[in-house]
Amino acid sequence: MTAEIITIGDEILIGQTVDTNSTFIAKEFNKIGLSINRISSIKDSESDILTTLNSCLNYSDIVIVTGGLGPTNDDITKNTLLKFFNDKLITDHNVLDNIKFIWKKYIKQPLLQVNIDQSLVPSKAHVFLNTKGSAPGLWLQKNNTIFVFLPGVPFEMKSLIKDSIIPKILKEFSLPHILHKTILTYGMGESSIAEIIKNWEDSLPVEISLAYLPSLGRVKLRLSTKGDDLNKIIDNIQFQVDKLLPLIKDIFVGYEEDESIEKLISNELIKNNSTISIAESFTGGKISDSLVSIAGASTFFKGGVVCYSTESKINTLKVNLDLIEKYSVVSSQVVESMAVKTKELFNSDYGLATTGNAGPNKGDSSKEIGTVFIGIATPKEVFSFEFNFGNSRERVTNKAVNKSFELLLKELLKN
Amino acid sequence: MTAEIITIGDEILIGQTVDTNSTFIAKEFNKIGLSINRISSIKDSESDILTTLNSCLNYSDIVIVTGGLGPTNDDITKNTLLKFFNDKLITDHNVLDNIKFIWKKYIKQPLLQVNIDQSLVPSKAHVFLNTKGSAPGLWLQKNNTIFVFLPGVPFEMKSLIKDSIIPKILKEFSLPHILHKTILTYGMGESSIAEIIKNWEDSLPVEISLAYLPSLGRVKLRLSTKGDDLNKIIDNIQFQVDKLLPLIKDIFVGYEEDESIEKLISNELIKNNSTISIAESFTGGKISDSLVSIAGASTFFKGGVVCYSTESKINTLKVNLDLIEKYSVVSSQVVESMAVKTKELFNSDYGLATTGNAGPNKGDSSKEIGTVFIGIATPKEVFSFEFNFGNSRERVTNKAVNKSFELLLKELLKN
Repeated sequence: MTAEIITIGDEILIGQTVDTNSTFIAKEFNKIGLSINRISSIKDSESDILTTLNSCLNYSDIVIVTGGLGPTNDDITKNTLLKFFNDKLITDHNVLDNIKFIWKKYIKQPLLQVNIDQSLVPSKAHVFLNTKGSAPGLWLQKNNTIFVFLPGVPFEMKSLIKDSIIPKILKEFSLPHILHKTILTYGMGESSIAEIIKNWEDSLPVEISLAYLPSLGRVKLRLSTKGDDLNKIIDNIQFQVDKLLPLIKDIFVGYEEDESIEKLISNELIKNNSTISIAESFTGGKISDSLVSIAGASTFFKGGVVCYSTESKINTLKVNLDLIEKYSVVSSQVVESMAVKTKELFNSDYGLATTGNAGPNKGDSSKEIGTVFIGIATPKEVFSFEFNFGNSRERVTNKAVNKSFELLLKELLKN
Repeated sequence: MTAEIITIGDEILIGQTVDTNSTFIAKEFNKIGLSINRISSIKDSESDILTTLNSCLNYSDIVIVTGGLGPTNDDITKNTLLKFFNDKLITDHNVLDNIKFIWKKYIKQPLLQVNIDQSLVPSKAHVFLNTKGSAPGLWLQKNNTIFVFLPGVPFEMKSLIKDSIIPKILKEFSLPHILHKTILTYGMGESSIAEIIKNWEDSLPVEISLAYLPSLGRVKLRLSTKGDDLNKIIDNIQFQVDKLLPLIKDIFVGYEEDESIEKLISNELIKNNSTISIAESFTGGKISDSLVSIAGASTFFKGGVVCYSTESKINTLKVNLDLIEKYSVVSSQVVESMAVKTKELFNSDYGLATTGNAGPNKGDSSKEIGTVFIGIATPKEVFSFEFNFGNSRERVTNKAVNKSFELLLKELLKN
């Protein structure tokens, strides 16, 4: 069984919108053992849609098509699929009732004819109600391939995939298990890692594949396999991981399950009954935001200060002016003081702070662009690290956030 | 002239990585008048790569392929393209010198054989040096189609596209101008907008297309056209925009050029010589971060506090405990106090604050999940708004951030 995803919409092809819908669908399908062959984005054009749908017939068992089902004139998917399936539209009264209900309860605006027309569906389609919007999900078959059409609005699409499409697929088909295990490493490049683990990699069985995913100072190593016996494939992957870990013990920081390094940090903080607060200069709130995004953040996150200006470091965070004048605002002394002061301000066990010159201009410090200091105050001590992350503002910021999490997790794992 | 983009890498097909490379390339190509026909993501598999490259021959003039050029065993693009072009590898000494230079200056680790092998290139390729990494860009032709192979690491790919590939395309081909103008509206659904602008939309000339892009409380209206005479197409679009604006004056907030509503806000603040500070509860630093990300933020952004816990609202921001006990922490009274207190704390002209129950649990307030208050303190007054943004934590947060920017911009535009 193989699947593919097609997104319809000019906004992706002109670079206005990032295609996150496909990422979501691919991830959910992997969880139920359905591999994605191909993801395509095409224009709101009848000929392109028809060409692409035809190309799926000998290529995939299930095709998920999103987008182009809205009520406005630029949405042409529904009329195009009538041609592909040689079908006609009929009113689905459940869909109509659902639209009337949504308009009355949430939209609270007049129900227009274009909204009512959303209840017209192809007569051959199995229809899935969309409880969050007006365009239903449509399941149709041609030859041996199933085509599922879904609205492109992310939260409508997600709810249809989870609540309707996946249950239907699981009912209709028997699927294998797909297992990925991703190991997070920090501090070494991919070719050096490959050199260290060469013998292990060469001895991997054919049914287990390895991928290297380098990004901003970290490399993820992903092991993937597939099989009908879940316990057996879990054991097979674990057997390889157990052989791998001793080889990479200096750079290993954890696993990426569905979750990130922030989640690993939150697990450690919660386990130790510890709290943290954050003082951010050029990282602008990114570190706080990543931590607050974790469910249950209130148990370990006490607060954050975004003190981008020197003035706010002095007035709000109460960093000593003398320290700034003596060492400059981008210095180990200042970042350590920021870490300690935020810890005091929010009465937390740990304080994490960043200061740096992310560019494009040097700001209130003469330090070279790309210079970053990260400070960590623990219940016992305070220390800091200096880095240079290059001259792209966005990269400097993102590398500093990643590095902050890496250093913090390493510290927490010492306990 | 049409182009297409192919990304190679299992990480996209299993949903581990979002394909932002294609978005970048599509946007840059649009700027030079090159339309993207199709974007495909395929696996690191020889047969899939060959099938897809073959499918491009009668479909596109230029094909950009990213990914699979790294030094590790999971990268198979280079060996596969040798088959497709019936070619062999030769050493490119400029590439080798570049690799040696990068390793000496930045990597500072031993140069391994796999790194040296990155200087092996197909003999028929026009080679572009990659000054940021070891895999060069490769430009090859088959029949009438040009294939360009680039590394998948975003900052290496971006630099090659901007500094090498686009100049080469502009030198080789004469391209039309593509123009998009995107209008930002807030506060009305797409079908109601379509109703209001129906006559205008029906009278649009065929060479101008209109798209509706709804998302989280806002709808973007995008006008697109193409032509050889830039001034003429600019005039044509402006003529239509001038007719459209009076129809949507209550919901129009500005244009999306390359930039966002945050940029419009920063423009207004800078123009008025005003400053702002932010107090965020459940939005966790997202608002501060969006503002700090704008170049020149230091001129208008004074600072932010992430006071997620009730304790930090009292101790750090100095919101009155009595107010919280009387009205609850999720209330107009508290959000207005937060806006005023952050303005005082950072000595700014404006203060913006959020508080709410984003779920999944109710936290320190009995208000319904999804309830959000947004407060704005101006130099003259303070006011607030109440919303319910539903029961998905992520959506509630993102809608609140969007709505905060919308309300703030409206306030700033009054001046």
